[in-house]
Amino acid sequence: MIKVGIIGVGTVGASVVQILKDNQEIISARAGTEIVVKCGVVRDLSKDRGLDIALSDNINEILDDAQIDIVVELMGGVQEAFEVVKLALQKGKAVVTANKALLAYHRYELQELAADKAFEYEASVAGGIPIINALRDGLSANHIESIVGIMNGTCNYMLTKMIQDGVSFKDILKEAQELGYAEADPTFDIGGFDAAHKLLILASIAYGIDAKPEDILIEGIEHITQDDISFAKEFGYSIKLLAIARRMGDEVELRVHAALIDNSEMIAKIDGVMNGISVVGDKVGETLYYGAGAGGDATASAVVANLIDIARSGKSKPMLGFNKPLEGGLKLKPVEQMESKYYLRINVRDETGVLAKLTSIFADSKISIQTVLQRPSKDESANLLISTHQSCEKDIQSVIKQISQLDFVNSTPVMIRIKE
Amino acid sequence: MIKVGIIGVGTVGASVVQILKDNQEIISARAGTEIVVKCGVVRDLSKDRGLDIALSDNINEILDDAQIDIVVELMGGVQEAFEVVKLALQKGKAVVTANKALLAYHRYELQELAADKAFEYEASVAGGIPIINALRDGLSANHIESIVGIMNGTCNYMLTKMIQDGVSFKDILKEAQELGYAEADPTFDIGGFDAAHKLLILASIAYGIDAKPEDILIEGIEHITQDDISFAKEFGYSIKLLAIARRMGDEVELRVHAALIDNSEMIAKIDGVMNGISVVGDKVGETLYYGAGAGGDATASAVVANLIDIARSGKSKPMLGFNKPLEGGLKLKPVEQMESKYYLRINVRDETGVLAKLTSIFADSKISIQTVLQRPSKDESANLLISTHQSCEKDIQSVIKQISQLDFVNSTPVMIRIKE
Repeated sequence: MIKVGIIGVGTVGASVVQILKDNQEIISARAGTEIVVKCGVVRDLSKDRGLDIALSDNINEILDDAQIDIVVELMGGVQEAFEVVKLALQKGKAVVTANKALLAYHRYELQELAADKAFEYEASVAGGIPIINALRDGLSANHIESIVGIMNGTCNYMLTKMIQDGVSFKDILKEAQELGYAEADPTFDIGGFDAAHKLLILASIAYGIDAKPEDILIEGIEHITQDDISFAKEFGYSIKLLAIARRMGDEVELRVHAALIDNSEMIAKIDGVMNGISVVGDKVGETLYYGAGAGGDATASAVVANLIDIARSGKSKPMLGFNKPLEGGLKLKPVEQMESKYYLRINVRDETGVLAKLTSIFADSKISIQTVLQRPSKDESANLLISTHQSCEKDIQSVIKQISQLDFVNSTPVMIRIKE
Repeated sequence: MIKVGIIGVGTVGASVVQILKDNQEIISARAGTEIVVKCGVVRDLSKDRGLDIALSDNINEILDDAQIDIVVELMGGVQEAFEVVKLALQKGKAVVTANKALLAYHRYELQELAADKAFEYEASVAGGIPIINALRDGLSANHIESIVGIMNGTCNYMLTKMIQDGVSFKDILKEAQELGYAEADPTFDIGGFDAAHKLLILASIAYGIDAKPEDILIEGIEHITQDDISFAKEFGYSIKLLAIARRMGDEVELRVHAALIDNSEMIAKIDGVMNGISVVGDKVGETLYYGAGAGGDATASAVVANLIDIARSGKSKPMLGFNKPLEGGLKLKPVEQMESKYYLRINVRDETGVLAKLTSIFADSKISIQTVLQRPSKDESANLLISTHQSCEKDIQSVIKQISQLDFVNSTPVMIRIKE
């Protein structure tokens, strides 16, 4: 029998307890042994959680219990969780976590600490989709060329509704908050930080590359309007918040931002709160994984799968996919050297000569324009919607800066990258 | 160092050798050890395969070599492959196979023979998509409610082209054969048998249910015409060859047939030669896996992933997902008791009273009609395209039989099931 202690019994923790109870028979048959929760640790013991497990408000009840084989860390946060998980490993326990922030900051230290212990974290990326499993085991024969993921359900829900129902960002954010899809402070989701944490975890498995959230390009979806969506529709694009890891030579790009994606791509077809991750391997080609990226049961499904895996085989694979990092390794590509196609929305005073002046700035910076669309806006202004051919980030930022300073330009242009 | 012997060095075998060479460094870093091919066995030694491995035409060179740890079986066929794999296991070797026919017939015997040996077969279903991995490990916390897969690239390519380009079945079959997507004798693919073999493997992992191809409903795509496709387009459906496993109570449905699928479903969006498998778990909800289902490199990607997995952890999980089958277990649902919505194409002489007579047969059999579309056909005949509400297979078969016997009906009606 495998005994489990859960630290943090909120929505996901309660679902873990419930799944182990509901699916007890099939889980035992698959794991080859019974898996039981011996103790749950919570901050507030007075709250009735409707669960028939022993609860405590003292973490040491789990850490010091020699009978507990696996600690499930669901407390969230970074520093305290790191200390707790470290202690659990030192005390010889296996660890399962759903904590993406913990891993975004401490995964390499944890890999070292867990050298001879099982440490699993399937639930930390894309909830119930077994993407860690696929990337670390299923695609292990491949050099990974790229990972392109829709890994934040809140953003995908909002963008899908903006496209399908024509509502504004502000209105759909309010609705998402009322539905419980977005937090009261939605910054972590709509600013791209949640997706960035997940991307860093996947990038370590794919490339063995170390980076912190501070090191990579992270943009959100706050600037997207119906003008952008009408441009997208006109040219056969969808708009998604993408988390992208891409290898080019001995450099790896890591970036999170909104992107226009051709509607024919599979990743463009993932709508609503669902997540989807496209992984291209040098041998397997494109594979894609789709499912619920959040929610108690979907996330707990991944936690329990890790418990079953540890029950079956203990420590069976390197935590981040590599037993030893590759010599030399890959470097993070500086943001200003990244290349992309770009879309710019420029709000200008509607007067003669504006387009000529603007396009000459693009030409001087050697940025080649692909399409131009002019739409009337309010108050005698006009929106110029311009897309470019492949250009360098440094050059487009310079163009945006120059354009912002023109007297007939009403506000800083909005830029969205176009996925090739 | 892990030493491998490959029995059958055709397209996939050559790709396995090539991947182990091309990606040697990253594979060693992931496996924690080097994986080398010591010997390949082929039928015809005189053929130049351009590979720098030792070749033999004697299977015993692999089976009797105590240095070889893993036997990769890529010879195909059922009975001879079974004997070879059995011998390999008896001689203490781990086995990796891509042979779906072998598993469709002998997987439970193999699971017993491999009780204490690693036996892996990721490449046997959907080529490079790690679906065995996902189903057996990633979703192990779930009762599987359904598996709905597009698992034959030949059929999906042909149906996609028929829908997109309006070509006939006969013409697209010829094109697929010229492109190498279809065999000279295409029966195994277009008759649904290939998909059925794969379905049986997945059904064992999901449900622990034993069945042979002969036990389940297998239909192909040979009967599909542009009339059916125009109906599908009119009502927002796509047409796909689906392999379906579905649990209802203590029964499991297993069936392979063409189906009309609502265009909003993810599985309807998988086009061309690609494969996709939707798996619904009771806790995780719907997940979907997409990628190349065939081709040397994609299939070999899965074979090599299995080699890495065995190098990492040896025998770490039960071959078919269950350490012990569930007591009692689930039963195969008889075909005549299955339920579905149906579409019928009935070619009739274009004369008065025909529709009244036909619809009365439906009414007498208590089958409720959902839509009727009448289209002119050649030679003063008409095509009646009728879809029904949820009905029982026994009843629809009885209706088809009655309709076939009417004097104004020109040929046996064509039936396509509609996926709810």
